[in-house]
Amino acid sequence: MQTVMVNLGERSYTIHIGSGLLQNHNALQQALLPSCAGKKVAIVTNTTVAPLYLSPLVSYLEAVGKTVVPIILPDGESYKDWGHLQRIFDGLLENHCSRQVTLIALGGGVIGDMTGFAAACYMRGVPFVQIPTTLLSQVDSSVGGKTGINHPLGKNMIGAFYQPQVVLIDTATLKTLPARELSAGLAEIIKHGLIADPEYFNWVTNTMPQLRALDSDALATVIRRSVEIKAAVVAADERESGLRAILNFGHTFGHAIEAGMGYGTWLHGEAVGAGMVLAAVLSHRLNYLSEENLNQIINTIAAAGLPTQAPSLGVQAYLDHMAVDKKAGDHGIQFILLDGIGRAKIQAVDGQPLLDTLATTNKQ
Amino acid sequence: MQTVMVNLGERSYTIHIGSGLLQNHNALQQALLPSCAGKKVAIVTNTTVAPLYLSPLVSYLEAVGKTVVPIILPDGESYKDWGHLQRIFDGLLENHCSRQVTLIALGGGVIGDMTGFAAACYMRGVPFVQIPTTLLSQVDSSVGGKTGINHPLGKNMIGAFYQPQVVLIDTATLKTLPARELSAGLAEIIKHGLIADPEYFNWVTNTMPQLRALDSDALATVIRRSVEIKAAVVAADERESGLRAILNFGHTFGHAIEAGMGYGTWLHGEAVGAGMVLAAVLSHRLNYLSEENLNQIINTIAAAGLPTQAPSLGVQAYLDHMAVDKKAGDHGIQFILLDGIGRAKIQAVDGQPLLDTLATTNKQ
Repeated sequence: MQTVMVNLGERSYTIHIGSGLLQNHNALQQALLPSCAGKKVAIVTNTTVAPLYLSPLVSYLEAVGKTVVPIILPDGESYKDWGHLQRIFDGLLENHCSRQVTLIALGGGVIGDMTGFAAACYMRGVPFVQIPTTLLSQVDSSVGGKTGINHPLGKNMIGAFYQPQVVLIDTATLKTLPARELSAGLAEIIKHGLIADPEYFNWVTNTMPQLRALDSDALATVIRRSVEIKAAVVAADERESGLRAILNFGHTFGHAIEAGMGYGTWLHGEAVGAGMVLAAVLSHRLNYLSEENLNQIINTIAAAGLPTQAPSLGVQAYLDHMAVDKKAGDHGIQFILLDGIGRAKIQAVDGQPLLDTLATTNKQ
Repeated sequence: MQTVMVNLGERSYTIHIGSGLLQNHNALQQALLPSCAGKKVAIVTNTTVAPLYLSPLVSYLEAVGKTVVPIILPDGESYKDWGHLQRIFDGLLENHCSRQVTLIALGGGVIGDMTGFAAACYMRGVPFVQIPTTLLSQVDSSVGGKTGINHPLGKNMIGAFYQPQVVLIDTATLKTLPARELSAGLAEIIKHGLIADPEYFNWVTNTMPQLRALDSDALATVIRRSVEIKAAVVAADERESGLRAILNFGHTFGHAIEAGMGYGTWLHGEAVGAGMVLAAVLSHRLNYLSEENLNQIINTIAAAGLPTQAPSLGVQAYLDHMAVDKKAGDHGIQFILLDGIGRAKIQAVDGQPLLDTLATTNKQ
């Protein structure tokens, strides 16, 4: 079992990474149990993950004397809304869970974001644990404490910064992950290299076949390195007043793609893949990124099995969706750009370079 | 203008108290404007308060160059739910409010709790200002950062600890307050004396006629002293891990009364009035409080124009409602008791003393 610390003062926590953690009672006792102080533990999961991983976790917790409340939601980004968040509150209140309950998020990013937000709001805050089961949630949403739900007018518009007590990453869960979701996770891994570590980007590019073939050493390496990069950025700026925004590279365009197509049509990571291409094109048009680097980036994104061509929603639709994007300040739309591979910069952009970039989405 | 500081480290803020603050441009410039850094300001209020106080505030803010988004909700505890919280998010998103927006809560406790929770969740947190216009919200909910909404299975079950940037208390707004709501505010004022300051309790008891006649010096004195008491308790225990729970004196029973009768049937302060009588009876049955003190407390609550007889919901209904009360730990129901007037103690109680106390609600 490897560990990475996320250093956030009194909100610091540990990320445990290992293969088979969920079946390993010693590991669960050491990593999970100290965060379950009360008698009741609520496990929030979805209809896809529950048949695979819920039962051994329930058995373990019941064996150590806990009362387990399972709350099973439907699977998908389209259910990341108030109505389904309410089901978590319903389950907790119907089972008379007090402030001493611990919530466990067992699933991908949607489950993690919703469970974390439910924990932040239930009786004004109860402890929670992340057990991410997709590559994307393991390298991204399980680190940093961003929680929330979507609003019909924008993604993740309602939420909280709320840190888990601990994160358990069992790399064995990736064996049951569909290839499309594996690719979606690779999008964030590529992003980590692009914004912070050119050698890592090159390593990921060269190791892509092994990663897509689920080579466990390669996966353990990228999960650890991506978690380290994200943890360092978050530790420097927990509430996104500045630096943390670089983690949104590809996401301003990506959110517009998701909103324009309807949440759930593309996976988040797929939208980020095509969104990173647009952000790289914009960086190239502003003369921050060479054409050679732009092509390298597009090739790596394609090699990960991700879309590199954003959908043709119409230029105005892109602008409208980005206008409500949460990174939009009072002056113009703020983008994360690449000043070469491995260096991110934050800049408000409008006018011709942006219109030219969006024009590349109009394929006929 | 008097000021009271609430000392919460980096979340510290100032409470300004004065008559006519809302009409005083110098006071608004000094106390309000520094908390409105962005171009947009959203004022959340209700259909009762808006005709009285919205227009001068909008005029002032527009005169200093702000774009004002008014969001007007229906008036009443029964609207303190997700559907109406959603209207705040709708208003903010439809008007393209970014993270730089400031939310102003203009109204009573329901508006303050909902606006504060909306500010806590909108884009994971934007600044907000409290302008409480009822006595109850001025002495209670505007201090301490408890925000939230009700759930069908319990009051304030969904919420956040989230502190305002500043609080403006204009005592002139009490001139338009219905007598019943004035009494509801006196409930929390009586509570502050009972849990923390016996001399203050006696002063409030003796000054009750002037308070109910809206004597402005008497009102300014109680608002300042109650805010000081509450601020000191909150500063010692912001997230209610211990001491802060004493502020819930009368509230465990009170919440059961509100839930049992349906939210909005009695005002919150009325339920707390009758709830404090039950808590005093329980304290007496446990031999912490003399019969003389018990009668003094009942007389003062009656003199404030508050109910002293809790409704006959049935003993089991009380127990059921208190079982989900957020102060309920894993072991029994936790009550705030009086160890004499001016001294609160926290204790889990069940069995005969509790049943005997609840039996007093069965009037035939």
